[in-house]
Amino acid sequence: MSDLDSALAAAAADVERLMDVVLPTTGDAEAPLIDAMRYASLGGGKRLRAFLAIQSARLFGVDARCAIRVAAAIEFMHAYSLIHDDLPAMDDSDLRRGRPSCHKAFDEATAILAGDALQSLAFEILTDEGTHERTGVRLQLVRDLAHAVGAGGMAGGQMIDMIGENTALDIGAITRLQRMKTGELFAFSAGAGATLGQAGPRARAALHGFAQEFGLAFQITDDLLDVVGDADTTGKPVGLDAAAGKATFVTILGVERAAEQAGLLVDQAVHALDIFDETADFLRALARRLVDRVN
Amino acid sequence: MSDLDSALAAAAADVERLMDVVLPTTGDAEAPLIDAMRYASLGGGKRLRAFLAIQSARLFGVDARCAIRVAAAIEFMHAYSLIHDDLPAMDDSDLRRGRPSCHKAFDEATAILAGDALQSLAFEILTDEGTHERTGVRLQLVRDLAHAVGAGGMAGGQMIDMIGENTALDIGAITRLQRMKTGELFAFSAGAGATLGQAGPRARAALHGFAQEFGLAFQITDDLLDVVGDADTTGKPVGLDAAAGKATFVTILGVERAAEQAGLLVDQAVHALDIFDETADFLRALARRLVDRVN
Repeated sequence: MSDLDSALAAAAADVERLMDVVLPTTGDAEAPLIDAMRYASLGGGKRLRAFLAIQSARLFGVDARCAIRVAAAIEFMHAYSLIHDDLPAMDDSDLRRGRPSCHKAFDEATAILAGDALQSLAFEILTDEGTHERTGVRLQLVRDLAHAVGAGGMAGGQMIDMIGENTALDIGAITRLQRMKTGELFAFSAGAGATLGQAGPRARAALHGFAQEFGLAFQITDDLLDVVGDADTTGKPVGLDAAAGKATFVTILGVERAAEQAGLLVDQAVHALDIFDETADFLRALARRLVDRVN
Repeated sequence: MSDLDSALAAAAADVERLMDVVLPTTGDAEAPLIDAMRYASLGGGKRLRAFLAIQSARLFGVDARCAIRVAAAIEFMHAYSLIHDDLPAMDDSDLRRGRPSCHKAFDEATAILAGDALQSLAFEILTDEGTHERTGVRLQLVRDLAHAVGAGGMAGGQMIDMIGENTALDIGAITRLQRMKTGELFAFSAGAGATLGQAGPRARAALHGFAQEFGLAFQITDDLLDVVGDADTTGKPVGLDAAAGKATFVTILGVERAAEQAGLLVDQAVHALDIFDETADFLRALARRLVDRVN
Protein backbone atom coordinates (compact mmCIF):
# COMPACT_ATOMS: atom_id res chain seq x y z
CA MET A 1 0.00 0.00 0.00
CA SER A 2 1.45 3.36 -1.03
CA ASP A 3 1.66 6.36 1.28
CA LEU A 4 -1.20 7.93 -0.70
CA ASP A 5 -3.35 4.85 -0.23
CA SER A 6 -2.69 4.91 3.52
CA ALA A 7 -3.56 8.60 3.71
CA LEU A 8 -6.75 8.06 1.67
CA ALA A 9 -7.78 5.16 3.90
CA ALA A 10 -7.08 7.16 7.06
CA ALA A 11 -9.09 10.15 5.86
CA ALA A 12 -11.98 7.91 4.81
CA ALA A 13 -11.97 6.17 8.21
CA ASP A 14 -11.82 9.47 10.11
CA VAL A 15 -14.68 11.06 8.22
CA GLU A 16 -16.81 7.93 8.28
CA ARG A 17 -16.38 7.64 12.04
CA LEU A 18 -17.67 11.17 12.56
CA MET A 19 -20.52 10.74 10.07
CA ASP A 20 -21.62 7.64 11.96
CA VAL A 21 -21.71 9.60 15.24
CA VAL A 22 -23.49 12.63 13.78
CA LEU A 23 -26.24 10.47 12.28
CA PRO A 24 -27.36 7.96 14.93
CA THR A 25 -30.09 5.41 14.26
CA THR A 26 -33.37 6.12 16.03
CA GLY A 27 -36.34 4.20 17.38
CA ASP A 28 -38.65 7.07 16.47
CA ALA A 29 -41.27 6.90 13.74
CA GLU A 30 -39.00 8.59 11.18
CA ALA A 31 -36.46 5.73 11.50
CA PRO A 32 -36.65 4.72 7.80
CA LEU A 33 -35.50 8.23 6.85
CA ILE A 34 -32.43 7.98 9.09
CA ASP A 35 -31.75 4.45 7.81
CA ALA A 36 -31.83 5.71 4.21
CA MET A 37 -29.55 8.64 5.06
CA ARG A 38 -27.07 6.25 6.68
CA TYR A 39 -27.36 3.73 3.84
CA ALA A 40 -26.52 6.36 1.24
CA SER A 41 -23.81 8.23 3.10
CA LEU A 42 -21.94 5.60 5.13
CA GLY A 43 -20.10 2.45 4.17
CA GLY A 44 -18.15 3.29 1.09
CA GLY A 45 -17.05 5.76 -1.49
CA LYS A 46 -13.56 6.99 -2.12
CA ARG A 47 -14.12 10.10 0.02
CA LEU A 48 -12.04 12.13 -2.42
CA ARG A 49 -13.70 15.39 -1.39
CA ALA A 50 -13.10 14.68 2.29
CA PHE A 51 -9.48 13.96 1.44
CA LEU A 52 -9.12 17.29 -0.38
CA ALA A 53 -10.51 19.16 2.63
CA ILE A 54 -8.34 17.31 5.13
CA GLN A 55 -5.19 17.67 3.04
CA SER A 56 -5.76 21.36 2.29
CA ALA A 57 -6.24 21.97 6.02
CA ARG A 58 -2.83 20.37 6.69
CA LEU A 59 -1.21 23.04 4.50
CA PHE A 60 -2.20 25.67 7.06
CA GLY A 61 -1.69 23.70 10.25
CA VAL A 62 -5.43 23.50 10.95
CA ASP A 63 -6.61 21.19 13.78
CA ALA A 64 -7.54 17.90 12.06
CA ARG A 65 -10.79 17.67 14.06
CA CYS A 66 -12.05 20.86 12.39
CA ALA A 67 -11.11 19.60 8.94
CA ILE A 68 -12.86 16.27 9.54
CA ARG A 69 -16.09 18.07 10.48
CA VAL A 70 -16.01 20.04 7.25
CA ALA A 71 -15.16 16.85 5.37
CA ALA A 72 -18.22 15.15 6.89
CA ALA A 73 -20.43 18.04 5.79
CA ILE A 74 -19.04 17.74 2.26
CA GLU A 75 -19.57 13.98 2.12
CA PHE A 76 -23.16 14.30 3.38
CA MET A 77 -23.76 16.91 0.68
CA HIS A 78 -22.18 14.69 -1.95
CA ALA A 79 -24.29 11.74 -0.80
CA TYR A 80 -27.48 13.81 -1.16
CA SER A 81 -26.54 14.70 -4.75
CA LEU A 82 -25.91 11.05 -5.63
CA ILE A 83 -29.28 9.96 -4.20
CA HIS A 84 -31.17 12.55 -6.23
CA ASP A 85 -29.07 11.98 -9.39
CA ASP A 86 -29.91 8.27 -9.29
CA LEU A 87 -33.71 8.81 -9.12
CA PRO A 88 -35.86 7.49 -11.98
CA ALA A 89 -36.73 11.04 -13.07
CA MET A 90 -33.01 11.87 -13.26
CA ASP A 91 -30.30 9.38 -14.32
CA ASP A 92 -32.47 6.37 -13.37
CA SER A 93 -29.56 4.36 -11.99
CA ASP A 94 -30.23 1.19 -10.00
CA LEU A 95 -26.69 0.64 -8.84
CA ARG A 96 -24.32 2.81 -6.79
CA ARG A 97 -21.02 1.75 -5.29
CA GLY A 98 -21.89 -1.84 -6.20
CA ARG A 99 -25.12 -1.80 -4.18
CA PRO A 100 -28.75 -0.95 -5.01
CA SER A 101 -29.13 2.82 -5.19
CA CYS A 102 -31.08 4.45 -2.36
CA HIS A 103 -34.49 4.50 -4.06
CA LYS A 104 -34.12 0.80 -4.92
CA ALA A 105 -33.07 -0.18 -1.38
CA PHE A 106 -35.88 1.94 0.10
CA ASP A 107 -38.41 3.73 -2.10
CA GLU A 108 -38.52 6.95 -4.09
CA ALA A 109 -40.24 9.07 -1.45
CA THR A 110 -37.77 8.00 1.23
CA ALA A 111 -34.84 8.60 -1.12
CA ILE A 112 -36.00 12.12 -2.01
CA LEU A 113 -36.43 12.97 1.67
CA ALA A 114 -33.11 11.39 2.63
CA GLY A 115 -31.36 13.63 0.09
CA ASP A 116 -33.23 16.67 1.37
CA ALA A 117 -32.35 15.96 4.99
CA LEU A 118 -28.70 15.22 4.16
CA GLN A 119 -28.42 18.66 2.59
CA SER A 120 -29.71 20.36 5.76
CA LEU A 121 -27.48 18.16 7.90
CA ALA A 122 -24.41 19.26 5.95
CA PHE A 123 -25.13 22.90 6.73
CA GLU A 124 -26.02 22.14 10.34
CA ILE A 125 -22.65 20.45 10.98
CA LEU A 126 -20.79 23.52 9.76
CA THR A 127 -22.59 25.79 12.25
CA ASP A 128 -21.33 23.82 15.27
CA GLU A 129 -18.53 25.47 17.21
CA GLY A 130 -16.47 22.28 16.89
CA THR A 131 -15.99 23.20 13.23
CA HIS A 132 -14.09 26.39 14.05
CA GLU A 133 -13.90 28.69 17.06
CA ARG A 134 -14.67 31.80 15.00
CA THR A 135 -18.28 32.35 13.93
CA GLY A 136 -17.09 34.30 10.87
CA VAL A 137 -15.18 31.27 9.58
CA ARG A 138 -18.13 28.93 10.10
CA LEU A 139 -20.42 31.39 8.36
CA GLN A 140 -18.08 31.68 5.38
CA LEU A 141 -18.04 27.89 5.07
CA VAL A 142 -21.86 27.84 5.02
CA ARG A 143 -22.00 30.60 2.43
CA ASP A 144 -19.39 29.04 0.15
CA LEU A 145 -20.97 25.59 0.41
CA ALA A 146 -24.46 26.94 -0.28
CA HIS A 147 -23.11 28.71 -3.33
CA ALA A 148 -21.23 25.62 -4.54
CA VAL A 149 -24.30 23.37 -4.47
CA GLY A 150 -27.00 25.81 -5.60
CA ALA A 151 -28.43 26.87 -8.95
CA GLY A 152 -25.08 28.36 -10.01
CA GLY A 153 -23.21 25.22 -8.98
CA MET A 154 -24.05 21.56 -8.46
CA ALA A 155 -27.83 21.73 -8.96
CA GLY A 156 -27.48 23.99 -12.00
CA GLY A 157 -24.89 21.64 -13.50
CA GLN A 158 -27.19 18.65 -13.03
CA MET A 159 -29.98 20.64 -14.70
CA ILE A 160 -27.80 21.24 -17.78
CA ASP A 161 -26.85 17.56 -17.70
CA MET A 162 -30.55 16.62 -17.86
CA ILE A 163 -31.13 19.06 -20.71
CA GLY A 164 -28.14 17.45 -22.46
CA GLU A 165 -30.07 14.19 -22.75
CA ASN A 166 -32.25 15.83 -25.40
CA THR A 167 -29.95 18.52 -26.77
CA ALA A 168 -26.48 18.14 -28.23
CA LEU A 169 -24.01 20.03 -26.02
CA ASP A 170 -20.71 21.24 -27.44
CA ILE A 171 -17.38 21.00 -25.62
CA GLY A 172 -17.78 24.49 -24.13
CA ALA A 173 -21.18 23.68 -22.70
CA ILE A 174 -19.98 20.35 -21.30
CA THR A 175 -16.98 22.01 -19.68
CA ARG A 176 -19.22 24.59 -18.04
CA LEU A 177 -21.72 21.97 -16.89
CA GLN A 178 -18.99 19.87 -15.32
CA ARG A 179 -17.36 22.86 -13.65
CA MET A 180 -20.75 23.51 -12.06
CA LYS A 181 -21.89 19.95 -11.39
CA THR A 182 -18.70 18.56 -9.85
CA GLY A 183 -16.08 21.33 -10.03
CA GLU A 184 -17.68 23.69 -7.54
CA LEU A 185 -17.89 21.09 -4.77
CA PHE A 186 -14.30 20.00 -5.46
CA ALA A 187 -13.28 23.66 -5.27
CA PHE A 188 -15.13 24.10 -2.00
CA SER A 189 -13.42 21.00 -0.61
CA ALA A 190 -9.91 22.06 -1.59
CA GLY A 191 -10.63 25.63 -0.46
CA ALA A 192 -12.03 24.59 2.92
CA GLY A 193 -8.55 24.23 4.43
CA ALA A 194 -7.68 27.77 3.37
CA THR A 195 -10.90 29.06 4.93
CA LEU A 196 -10.30 27.15 8.17
CA GLY A 197 -6.70 28.38 8.20
CA GLN A 198 -7.73 31.92 7.28
CA ALA A 199 -5.17 31.85 4.50
CA GLY A 200 -4.45 34.73 2.13
CA PRO A 201 -5.73 35.21 -1.42
CA ARG A 202 -2.63 33.67 -3.07
CA ALA A 203 -3.08 30.33 -1.31
CA ARG A 204 -6.84 30.40 -1.95
CA ALA A 205 -6.32 31.05 -5.65
CA ALA A 206 -3.78 28.22 -5.89
CA LEU A 207 -6.15 25.72 -4.29
CA HIS A 208 -9.05 26.93 -6.40
CA GLY A 209 -7.00 26.47 -9.56
CA PHE A 210 -5.92 23.03 -8.43
CA ALA A 211 -9.51 21.97 -7.71
CA GLN A 212 -10.89 23.28 -10.99
CA GLU A 213 -8.36 21.37 -13.11
CA PHE A 214 -8.54 18.34 -10.83
CA GLY A 215 -12.33 18.29 -11.05
CA LEU A 216 -12.38 18.44 -14.82
CA ALA A 217 -9.68 15.76 -15.10
CA PHE A 218 -11.71 13.64 -12.69
CA GLN A 219 -14.81 14.00 -14.85
CA ILE A 220 -12.99 13.14 -18.07
CA THR A 221 -11.50 10.00 -16.53
CA ASP A 222 -14.98 9.16 -15.22
CA ASP A 223 -16.33 9.46 -18.76
CA LEU A 224 -13.43 7.32 -19.99
CA LEU A 225 -14.18 4.64 -17.40
CA ASP A 226 -17.79 4.58 -18.62
CA VAL A 227 -16.36 3.46 -21.96
CA VAL A 228 -13.23 1.48 -21.12
CA GLY A 229 -13.96 0.41 -17.50
CA ASP A 230 -16.05 -2.47 -16.18
CA ALA A 231 -18.81 -2.59 -13.56
CA ASP A 232 -16.75 -4.75 -11.18
CA THR A 233 -14.07 -2.12 -10.65
CA THR A 234 -16.19 1.02 -10.94
CA GLY A 235 -19.08 -0.30 -8.83
CA LYS A 236 -21.66 1.09 -11.22
CA PRO A 237 -23.05 0.13 -14.61
CA VAL A 238 -20.89 1.10 -17.61
CA GLY A 239 -21.98 2.36 -21.01
CA LEU A 240 -24.78 4.43 -19.45
CA ASP A 241 -23.78 7.65 -21.18
CA ALA A 242 -23.63 6.04 -24.60
CA ALA A 243 -26.95 4.25 -24.00
CA ALA A 244 -28.55 7.56 -23.00
CA GLY A 245 -27.11 9.16 -26.15
CA LYS A 246 -25.43 11.75 -23.95
CA ALA A 247 -22.56 13.87 -25.22
CA THR A 248 -19.52 13.55 -22.95
CA PHE A 249 -15.87 14.58 -23.22
CA VAL A 250 -15.23 11.13 -24.67
CA THR A 251 -18.03 11.08 -27.26
CA ILE A 252 -16.86 14.47 -28.54
CA LEU A 253 -13.07 14.16 -28.23
CA GLY A 254 -12.70 10.40 -28.64
CA VAL A 255 -10.90 8.14 -26.17
CA GLU A 256 -7.37 9.10 -27.13
CA ARG A 257 -7.74 12.88 -27.12
CA ALA A 258 -9.85 12.77 -23.95
CA ALA A 259 -7.09 10.85 -22.15
CA GLU A 260 -4.57 13.35 -23.45
CA GLN A 261 -6.70 16.22 -22.20
CA ALA A 262 -7.02 14.63 -18.76
CA GLY A 263 -3.24 14.32 -18.58
CA LEU A 264 -2.85 17.99 -19.47
CA LEU A 265 -5.33 19.07 -16.81
CA VAL A 266 -3.56 16.98 -14.19
CA ASP A 267 -0.26 18.69 -15.09
CA GLN A 268 -1.94 22.07 -14.64
CA ALA A 269 -3.50 20.98 -11.33
CA VAL A 270 -0.11 19.90 -9.99
CA HIS A 271 1.48 23.09 -11.28
CA ALA A 272 -1.08 25.18 -9.38
CA LEU A 273 0.33 23.74 -6.15
CA ASP A 274 3.86 24.98 -6.81
CA ILE A 275 3.65 27.62 -4.07
CA PHE A 276 3.29 24.88 -1.42
CA ASP A 277 6.08 22.72 0.03
CA GLU A 278 6.05 18.94 0.33
CA THR A 279 3.03 19.10 2.65
CA ALA A 280 1.04 19.23 -0.60
CA ASP A 281 2.57 16.01 -1.94
CA PHE A 282 -0.56 13.93 -1.22
CA LEU A 283 -2.65 16.38 -3.25
CA ARG A 284 -0.11 16.12 -6.08
CA ALA A 285 -0.08 12.33 -5.88
CA LEU A 286 -3.88 12.19 -5.90
CA ALA A 287 -4.02 14.23 -9.10
CA ARG A 288 -1.40 11.97 -10.75
CA ARG A 289 -3.41 8.94 -9.65
CA LEU A 290 -6.40 10.11 -11.74
CA VAL A 291 -4.52 9.56 -14.96
CA ASP A 292 -3.23 6.20 -13.79
CA ARG A 293 -6.74 4.83 -13.27
CA VAL A 294 -7.48 4.93 -16.98
CA ASN A 295 -4.08 3.79 -18.25
CA MET B 1 -59.86 45.41 4.31
CA SER B 2 -58.98 44.93 7.98
CA ASP B 3 -55.71 46.13 9.53
CA LEU B 4 -54.58 42.49 9.61
CA ASP B 5 -55.31 42.07 5.92
CA SER B 6 -53.32 45.21 5.12
CA ALA B 7 -50.40 44.02 7.22
CA LEU B 8 -50.50 40.57 5.60
CA ALA B 9 -50.59 42.11 2.12
CA ALA B 10 -47.71 44.47 2.94
CA ALA B 11 -45.55 41.65 4.31
CA ALA B 12 -46.31 39.46 1.29
CA ALA B 13 -45.41 42.29 -1.10
CA ASP B 14 -42.18 43.10 0.77
CA VAL B 15 -40.97 39.52 0.84
CA GLU B 16 -41.99 38.81 -2.74
CA ARG B 17 -40.12 41.90 -3.95
CA LEU B 18 -36.91 40.71 -2.32
CA MET B 19 -37.37 37.12 -3.52
CA ASP B 20 -37.75 38.42 -7.05
CA VAL B 21 -34.47 40.33 -6.78
CA VAL B 22 -32.55 37.48 -5.16
CA LEU B 23 -33.59 35.04 -7.88
CA PRO B 24 -33.11 36.76 -11.25
CA THR B 25 -33.92 35.01 -14.53
CA THR B 26 -30.90 33.99 -16.57
CA GLY B 27 -29.99 33.43 -20.19
CA ASP B 28 -27.58 30.66 -19.20
CA ALA B 29 -28.14 27.00 -19.99
CA GLU B 30 -29.61 26.28 -16.54
CA ALA B 31 -32.45 28.77 -17.20
CA PRO B 32 -35.26 26.17 -16.81
CA LEU B 33 -34.06 25.50 -13.25
CA ILE B 34 -34.28 29.19 -12.34
CA ASP B 35 -37.66 29.43 -14.07
CA ALA B 36 -38.96 26.50 -12.01
CA MET B 37 -37.59 28.00 -8.79
CA ARG B 38 -39.32 31.28 -9.59
CA TYR B 39 -42.55 29.56 -10.64
CA ALA B 40 -42.77 27.66 -7.36
CA SER B 41 -41.68 30.40 -5.00
CA LEU B 42 -43.05 33.65 -6.47
CA GLY B 43 -46.53 34.81 -7.32
CA GLY B 44 -48.72 33.67 -4.53
CA GLY B 45 -49.16 31.99 -1.22
CA LYS B 46 -50.34 33.56 1.99
CA ARG B 47 -46.76 34.12 3.20
CA LEU B 48 -47.86 33.28 6.74
CA ARG B 49 -44.34 32.26 7.76
CA ALA B 50 -42.89 35.48 6.39
CA PHE B 51 -45.53 37.39 8.32
CA LEU B 52 -44.62 35.61 11.56
CA ALA B 53 -40.94 36.49 11.09
CA ILE B 54 -41.64 40.12 10.21
CA GLN B 55 -44.12 40.59 13.06
CA SER B 56 -41.91 38.92 15.65
CA ALA B 57 -39.04 41.18 14.56
CA ARG B 58 -41.26 44.22 15.20
CA LEU B 59 -41.56 43.14 18.85
CA PHE B 60 -37.85 43.82 19.33
CA GLY B 61 -37.45 46.89 17.15
CA VAL B 62 -35.46 44.99 14.52
CA ASP B 63 -34.73 46.75 11.20
CA ALA B 64 -37.47 45.58 8.81
CA ARG B 65 -34.94 44.95 6.03
CA CYS B 66 -33.27 42.25 8.15
CA ALA B 67 -36.59 40.62 8.95
CA ILE B 68 -37.60 40.60 5.27
CA ARG B 69 -34.37 38.80 4.34
CA VAL B 70 -35.06 36.08 6.90
CA ALA B 71 -38.67 35.94 5.71
CA ALA B 72 -37.46 35.40 2.13
CA ALA B 73 -35.21 32.55 3.27
CA ILE B 74 -38.16 30.95 5.05
CA GLU B 75 -40.47 31.28 2.06
CA PHE B 76 -37.84 29.78 -0.29
CA MET B 77 -37.47 26.89 2.14
CA HIS B 78 -41.25 26.46 2.36
CA ALA B 79 -41.51 26.54 -1.45
CA TYR B 80 -38.91 23.77 -1.72
CA SER B 81 -40.91 21.58 0.67
CA LEU B 82 -44.12 22.10 -1.30
CA ILE B 83 -42.42 21.17 -4.61
CA HIS B 84 -41.08 17.91 -3.18
CA ASP B 85 -44.29 17.11 -1.27
CA ASP B 86 -46.29 17.40 -4.51
CA LEU B 87 -44.08 14.94 -6.46
CA PRO B 88 -45.69 11.72 -7.76
CA ALA B 89 -43.61 9.63 -5.32
CA MET B 90 -44.90 11.73 -2.43
CA ASP B 91 -48.40 13.25 -2.26
CA ASP B 92 -48.81 13.16 -6.08
CA SER B 93 -50.63 16.47 -6.24
CA ASP B 94 -51.20 18.13 -9.63
CA LEU B 95 -52.50 21.40 -8.27
CA ARG B 96 -50.91 24.00 -5.96
CA ARG B 97 -52.23 27.49 -5.25
CA GLY B 98 -54.73 27.01 -8.07
CA ARG B 99 -52.01 26.33 -10.66
CA PRO B 100 -50.30 23.18 -11.94
CA SER B 101 -47.76 22.03 -9.37
CA CYS B 102 -44.09 22.48 -10.30
CA HIS B 103 -43.51 18.99 -11.74
CA LYS B 104 -46.62 19.38 -13.92
CA ALA B 105 -45.63 22.85 -15.17
CA PHE B 106 -42.04 21.64 -15.82
CA ASP B 107 -41.03 18.02 -15.31
CA GLU B 108 -40.08 15.81 -12.37
CA ALA B 109 -36.31 16.18 -12.73
CA THR B 110 -36.54 19.97 -12.92
CA ALA B 111 -38.91 20.04 -9.94
CA ILE B 112 -36.60 17.91 -7.78
CA LEU B 113 -33.62 20.13 -8.65
CA ALA B 114 -35.61 23.33 -8.12
CA GLY B 115 -36.50 22.17 -4.60
CA ASP B 116 -32.87 21.23 -3.93
CA ALA B 117 -31.57 24.60 -5.13
CA LEU B 118 -34.22 26.54 -3.21
CA GLN B 119 -33.05 24.86 -0.02
CA SER B 120 -29.43 25.98 -0.61
CA LEU B 121 -30.62 29.44 -1.58
CA ALA B 122 -32.48 29.81 1.71
CA PHE B 123 -29.29 29.15 3.68
CA GLU B 124 -27.22 31.35 1.39
CA ILE B 125 -29.48 34.37 1.97
CA LEU B 126 -29.07 34.06 5.72
CA THR B 127 -25.27 34.24 5.47
CA ASP B 128 -25.32 37.67 3.78
CA GLU B 129 -24.37 40.57 6.03
CA GLY B 130 -27.59 42.33 5.04
CA THR B 131 -29.41 39.79 7.21
CA HIS B 132 -27.71 40.99 10.40
CA GLU B 133 -24.50 42.83 11.18
CA ARG B 134 -23.33 40.18 13.68
CA THR B 135 -21.96 36.93 12.26
CA GLY B 136 -23.07 35.07 15.41
CA VAL B 137 -26.70 36.01 14.79
CA ARG B 138 -26.57 34.93 11.13
CA LEU B 139 -24.94 31.67 12.13
CA GLN B 140 -27.62 30.97 14.73
CA LEU B 141 -30.31 31.54 12.11
CA VAL B 142 -28.60 29.03 9.79
CA ARG B 143 -28.29 26.47 12.58
CA ASP B 144 -31.88 26.85 13.77
CA LEU B 145 -33.26 26.71 10.23
CA ALA B 146 -31.18 23.65 9.35
CA HIS B 147 -32.46 21.95 12.46
CA ALA B 148 -36.07 22.94 11.74
CA VAL B 149 -36.12 21.46 8.24
CA GLY B 150 -33.94 18.35 8.77
CA ALA B 151 -34.62 14.76 9.79
CA GLY B 152 -35.80 15.86 13.25
CA GLY B 153 -38.10 18.49 11.73
CA MET B 154 -39.80 19.08 8.40
CA ALA B 155 -38.25 16.21 6.42
CA GLY B 156 -38.77 13.75 9.28
CA GLY B 157 -42.39 14.84 9.62
CA GLN B 158 -43.01 14.30 5.92
CA MET B 159 -41.42 10.84 6.26
CA ILE B 160 -43.88 9.91 9.01
CA ASP B 161 -46.68 11.35 6.89
CA MET B 162 -45.69 9.01 4.03
CA ILE B 163 -45.54 6.04 6.41
CA GLY B 164 -49.00 7.06 7.61
CA GLU B 165 -50.42 6.25 4.19
CA ASN B 166 -49.93 2.55 4.95
CA THR B 167 -50.03 2.51 8.75
CA ALA B 168 -52.75 3.79 11.05
CA LEU B 169 -51.34 6.64 13.14
CA ASP B 170 -52.91 7.51 16.49
CA ILE B 171 -53.51 11.05 17.71
CA GLY B 172 -50.15 11.18 19.51
CA ALA B 173 -48.26 10.15 16.39
CA ILE B 174 -50.15 12.65 14.23
CA THR B 175 -49.48 15.44 16.70
CA ARG B 176 -45.76 14.63 16.71
CA LEU B 177 -45.66 14.37 12.92
CA GLN B 178 -47.34 17.75 12.49
CA ARG B 179 -45.14 19.42 15.10
CA MET B 180 -42.20 18.21 13.00
CA LYS B 181 -43.61 18.69 9.51
CA THR B 182 -45.06 22.17 9.89
CA GLY B 183 -44.56 23.20 13.54
CA GLU B 184 -40.78 23.48 13.47
CA LEU B 185 -40.72 25.90 10.53
CA PHE B 186 -43.51 27.96 12.13
CA ALA B 187 -41.46 28.01 15.34
CA PHE B 188 -38.35 29.09 13.45
CA SER B 189 -40.34 31.86 11.75
CA ALA B 190 -41.84 33.22 14.95
CA GLY B 191 -38.52 32.85 16.75
CA ALA B 192 -36.53 34.60 14.03
CA GLY B 193 -37.46 38.04 15.35
CA ALA B 194 -36.18 37.13 18.80
CA THR B 195 -32.91 35.89 17.29
CA LEU B 196 -32.49 39.03 15.18
CA GLY B 197 -33.33 41.16 18.23
CA GLN B 198 -31.08 39.07 20.49
CA ALA B 199 -34.01 38.74 22.90
CA GLY B 200 -33.88 36.91 26.20
CA PRO B 201 -35.11 33.39 27.00
CA ARG B 202 -38.52 34.54 28.27
CA ALA B 203 -39.44 36.21 24.97
CA ARG B 204 -38.03 33.28 23.00
CA ALA B 205 -40.08 30.78 25.00
CA ALA B 206 -43.24 32.85 24.55
CA LEU B 207 -42.83 32.97 20.77
CA HIS B 208 -41.96 29.28 20.62
CA GLY B 209 -45.11 28.42 22.57
CA PHE B 210 -47.18 30.66 20.34
CA ALA B 211 -45.78 29.07 17.17
CA GLN B 212 -46.26 25.51 18.39
CA GLU B 213 -49.94 26.02 19.22
CA PHE B 214 -50.49 28.17 16.15
CA GLY B 215 -48.88 25.53 13.91
CA LEU B 216 -51.03 22.74 15.26
CA ALA B 217 -54.20 24.83 15.03
CA PHE B 218 -53.20 25.71 11.45
CA GLN B 219 -52.83 22.03 10.57
CA ILE B 220 -56.15 21.05 12.11
CA THR B 221 -57.96 23.79 10.21
CA ASP B 222 -56.13 22.64 7.07
CA ASP B 223 -57.43 19.11 7.66
CA LEU B 224 -60.90 20.57 8.24
CA LEU B 225 -60.77 22.50 4.98
CA ASP B 226 -59.85 19.27 3.18
CA VAL B 227 -63.26 18.00 4.34
CA VAL B 228 -65.49 21.07 4.49
CA GLY B 229 -63.68 23.43 2.08
CA ASP B 230 -63.79 23.63 -1.71
CA ALA B 231 -61.00 23.77 -4.31
CA ASP B 232 -61.93 27.29 -5.44
CA THR B 233 -61.16 28.88 -2.09
CA THR B 234 -58.31 26.62 -0.99
CA GLY B 235 -56.57 26.56 -4.39
CA LYS B 236 -55.87 22.86 -4.13
CA PRO B 237 -57.90 19.67 -4.54
CA VAL B 238 -60.07 18.69 -1.55
CA GLY B 239 -60.77 15.24 -0.15
CA LEU B 240 -57.21 14.11 -0.85
CA ASP B 241 -56.59 12.84 2.67
CA ALA B 242 -59.77 10.77 2.72
CA ALA B 243 -59.05 9.42 -0.77
CA ALA B 244 -55.55 8.41 0.37
CA GLY B 245 -57.05 6.72 3.45
CA LYS B 246 -54.84 8.92 5.61
CA ALA B 247 -55.53 9.44 9.29
CA THR B 248 -55.78 13.15 10.12
CA PHE B 249 -56.95 15.11 13.14
CA VAL B 250 -60.37 15.19 11.50
CA THR B 251 -60.67 11.49 10.64
CA ILE B 252 -59.75 10.64 14.24
CA LEU B 253 -61.53 13.39 16.19
CA GLY B 254 -64.41 14.10 13.81
CA VAL B 255 -65.23 17.56 12.42
CA GLU B 256 -66.81 18.97 15.57
CA ARG B 257 -64.16 17.95 18.09
CA ALA B 258 -61.36 18.89 15.68
CA ALA B 259 -62.81 22.41 15.33
CA GLU B 260 -63.13 22.60 19.12
CA GLN B 261 -59.51 21.52 19.50
CA ALA B 262 -58.34 24.14 17.00
CA GLY B 263 -60.20 26.82 18.98
CA LEU B 264 -58.51 25.68 22.18
CA LEU B 265 -55.07 25.76 20.60
CA VAL B 266 -55.68 29.27 19.28
CA ASP B 267 -56.62 30.40 22.78
CA GLN B 268 -53.36 28.94 24.09
CA ALA B 269 -51.38 30.55 21.28
CA VAL B 270 -52.83 33.97 22.05
CA HIS B 271 -52.26 33.42 25.77
CA ALA B 272 -48.57 32.70 25.11
CA LEU B 273 -48.21 36.26 23.83
CA ASP B 274 -49.43 37.84 27.09
CA ILE B 275 -45.95 39.15 27.94
CA PHE B 276 -45.99 41.41 24.87
CA ASP B 277 -47.82 44.72 24.48
CA GLU B 278 -50.11 45.72 21.62
CA THR B 279 -47.21 45.40 19.15
CA ALA B 280 -48.17 41.70 19.14
CA ASP B 281 -51.77 42.40 18.15
CA PHE B 282 -51.27 41.30 14.53
CA LEU B 283 -49.93 37.94 15.73
CA ARG B 284 -52.95 37.60 18.02
CA ALA B 285 -55.33 38.55 15.21
CA LEU B 286 -53.69 36.08 12.83
CA ALA B 287 -54.21 33.24 15.28
CA ARG B 288 -57.87 34.21 15.77
CA ARG B 289 -58.26 34.32 11.97
CA LEU B 290 -57.38 30.61 11.74
CA VAL B 291 -60.53 29.60 13.56
CA ASP B 292 -62.64 31.99 11.49
CA ARG B 293 -61.61 30.36 8.21
CA VAL B 294 -63.38 27.14 9.06
CA ASN B 295 -66.45 28.66 10.69
